[in-house]
Amino acid sequence: MASVSLTVSTVKPLADRVFVKVSASEEKTAGGILLPDTAKEKPQIGEVVQVGPGKRNDDGTRQEPEIKIGDKVLYSKYAGTDVKLGGDEYVLLSEKDILAVVG
Amino acid sequence: MASVSLTVSTVKPLADRVFVKVSASEEKTAGGILLPDTAKEKPQIGEVVQVGPGKRNDDGTRQEPEIKIGDKVLYSKYAGTDVKLGGDEYVLLSEKDILAVVG
Amino acid sequence: MASVSLTVSTVKPLADRVFVKVSASEEKTAGGILLPDTAKEKPQIGEVVQVGPGKRNDDGTRQEPEIKIGDKVLYSKYAGTDVKLGGDEYVLLSEKDILAVVG
Amino acid sequence: MASVSLTVSTVKPLADRVFVKVSASEEKTAGGILLPDTAKEKPQIGEVVQVGPGKRNDDGTRQEPEIKIGDKVLYSKYAGTDVKLGGDEYVLLSEKDILAVVG
Amino acid sequence: MASVSLTVSTVKPLADRVFVKVSASEEKTAGGILLPDTAKEKPQIGEVVQVGPGKRNDDGTRQEPEIKIGDKVLYSKYAGTDVKLGGDEYVLLSEKDILAVVG
Amino acid sequence: MASVSLTVSTVKPLADRVFVKVSASEEKTAGGILLPDTAKEKPQIGEVVQVGPGKRNDDGTRQEPEIKIGDKVLYSKYAGTDVKLGGDEYVLLSEKDILAVVG
Amino acid sequence: MASVSLTVSTVKPLADRVFVKVSASEEKTAGGILLPDTAKEKPQIGEVVQVGPGKRNDDGTRQEPEIKIGDKVLYSKYAGTDVKLGGDEYVLLSEKDILAVVG
Repeated sequence: MASVSLTVSTVKPLADRVFVKVSASEEKTAGGILLPDTAKEKPQIGEVVQVGPGKRNDDGTRQEPEIKIGDKVLYSKYAGTDVKLGGDEYVLLSEKDILAVVG
Repeated sequence: MASVSLTVSTVKPLADRVFVKVSASEEKTAGGILLPDTAKEKPQIGEVVQVGPGKRNDDGTRQEPEIKIGDKVLYSKYAGTDVKLGGDEYVLLSEKDILAVVG
Repeated sequence: MASVSLTVSTVKPLADRVFVKVSASEEKTAGGILLPDTAKEKPQIGEVVQVGPGKRNDDGTRQEPEIKIGDKVLYSKYAGTDVKLGGDEYVLLSEKDILAVVG
Repeated sequence: MASVSLTVSTVKPLADRVFVKVSASEEKTAGGILLPDTAKEKPQIGEVVQVGPGKRNDDGTRQEPEIKIGDKVLYSKYAGTDVKLGGDEYVLLSEKDILAVVG
Repeated sequence: MASVSLTVSTVKPLADRVFVKVSASEEKTAGGILLPDTAKEKPQIGEVVQVGPGKRNDDGTRQEPEIKIGDKVLYSKYAGTDVKLGGDEYVLLSEKDILAVVG
Repeated sequence: MASVSLTVSTVKPLADRVFVKVSASEEKTAGGILLPDTAKEKPQIGEVVQVGPGKRNDDGTRQEPEIKIGDKVLYSKYAGTDVKLGGDEYVLLSEKDILAVVG
Repeated sequence: MASVSLTVSTVKPLADRVFVKVSASEEKTAGGILLPDTAKEKPQIGEVVQVGPGKRNDDGTRQEPEIKIGDKVLYSKYAGTDVKLGGDEYVLLSEKDILAVVG
């Protein structure tokens, strides 16, 4: 297997998954900014950078994703799989783990 | 990703989720007021400030939310995800975690 | 959020939930009275004071509640959420946690 | 709430539940009698004294109970909720926790 | 409740349950005989002596049992409820806990 | 119950179960042979010697098994029930616990 | 049972399973390469080398796999069953445990 040079554009989430760039915790501690209840917790806000094709139903059709690229989202801190790409943190989430669009 | 200046109006819950402002515990310890069995427990009353579009069925239709903005609700103390916004406490709940409308 | 002055009539359970006033344990230890196997356990009898609109089916219809206001009910001691209101104890239960109507 | 004077005839199980009078363990240790593998275990035989209306299907119809009043039944020792009534032991079981009719 | 004199023929399993007489462990340790991996484990072979009417579907029909009286069966050692009857060991199993017919 | 003299041909798996003869671990440690990640683990390769009639659907039809007698299969090491027969090791598996046909 | 000489081409995953060759961890620590959050974790990238026929629906039809041979995939580190073949590491995964195609 050849070496894999990954960029954000080469990551294609399956089914109802979305690829989210985790926001730096600095910008979340500023005044008037949504932040987790406990400052020690992992970041819970991010920006959607890739969206899967949607959950597949048994009849072959798909559920249209509710999330689109560019959405700022709040997600459950224990959800998904963390990945790093070029020094930045990302998380692969199922759409159901996204609690709200926040921007 | 640019800085996110959040206000209550920018939080858009997904699916059957609702965004609830937690009531200060002071007003709940007054006489004649509903309060949790154990005073040491987390607040369980709040006011709904945002409501998601409703749970999506497999055929693409949605279940109309039973909750509306402004409802005072009683919710299970272990449910949802706590968030802070401008010094106030909020919680993102699924509608099924709301036990009763209390005002 | 303004202060919430709750009374039993302002509590409106959602879906298939019922609001039950817990019977004082004194009246249950009298002769000929149903009481839990272990006297140290929490009360398990109460009187229904509010009933939700019934569980909602996926097609939007509701299942008619089997319980009505005024029913004395026996319920599972680990079920529901305890609340206090004006010095009395109440519990918010799902109808499925009610085992039998006992009066 | 007024005092509740319970008798067997006032207990009306909901859905697919049955109300069972637990057989005294004495009669089960006699020769030729079905008894649990371990003598120290709780009684597992009883007589059905009340039967609920049957499990309700989503379309509002009910599943006819397979058990009738007077049946001697064998049930799983960890199932149900124990209650005492007038000095006798009873158990509220779901029909699915009844393993066999034994008389 | 009168005393219950049980015989195998009076045990009527409900739904998809079967009543199985546990084979004595002696006959299973003989040469050429199927026996559990660990000799210390509980017997796992028995003979079906009673069969329930079959699992009931939601529409009221039943699934015909695949097991019949007289079948020698291999069953999962942790399944079912052990009962003794006249000095012999029996087990009440769901048909799904029977792994294979072995004779 | 008479003594049961079992042979492979007398074992008839129910539903979607298959009866698999466990491969001796010796032949799996040779070069070029598939073997578990940890040599200390239980064997995970075997040969199918009996196949059940297939999983029964609610309407009475069956799902045709994907596995046939003679298939070499890789299966999850924690799946199924171990049995011994004439000194050899066998395992009764559900078809869903078979990961791949390997020969 | 004769000895089994396995090669990648003889491994035929069942249902919705895929057979994946695990990427060497060396190539994943290079600059600009996707790598797990914690360097100590097991590799989570691999190349699909075999694909099963797809998950079977109850009516006998199959869900077409979304993955094809040659895809580079990111998968959950706790998913699947590890196997070794000719000195290389492989993993048998269900398609639902594949998070994204990454090349």
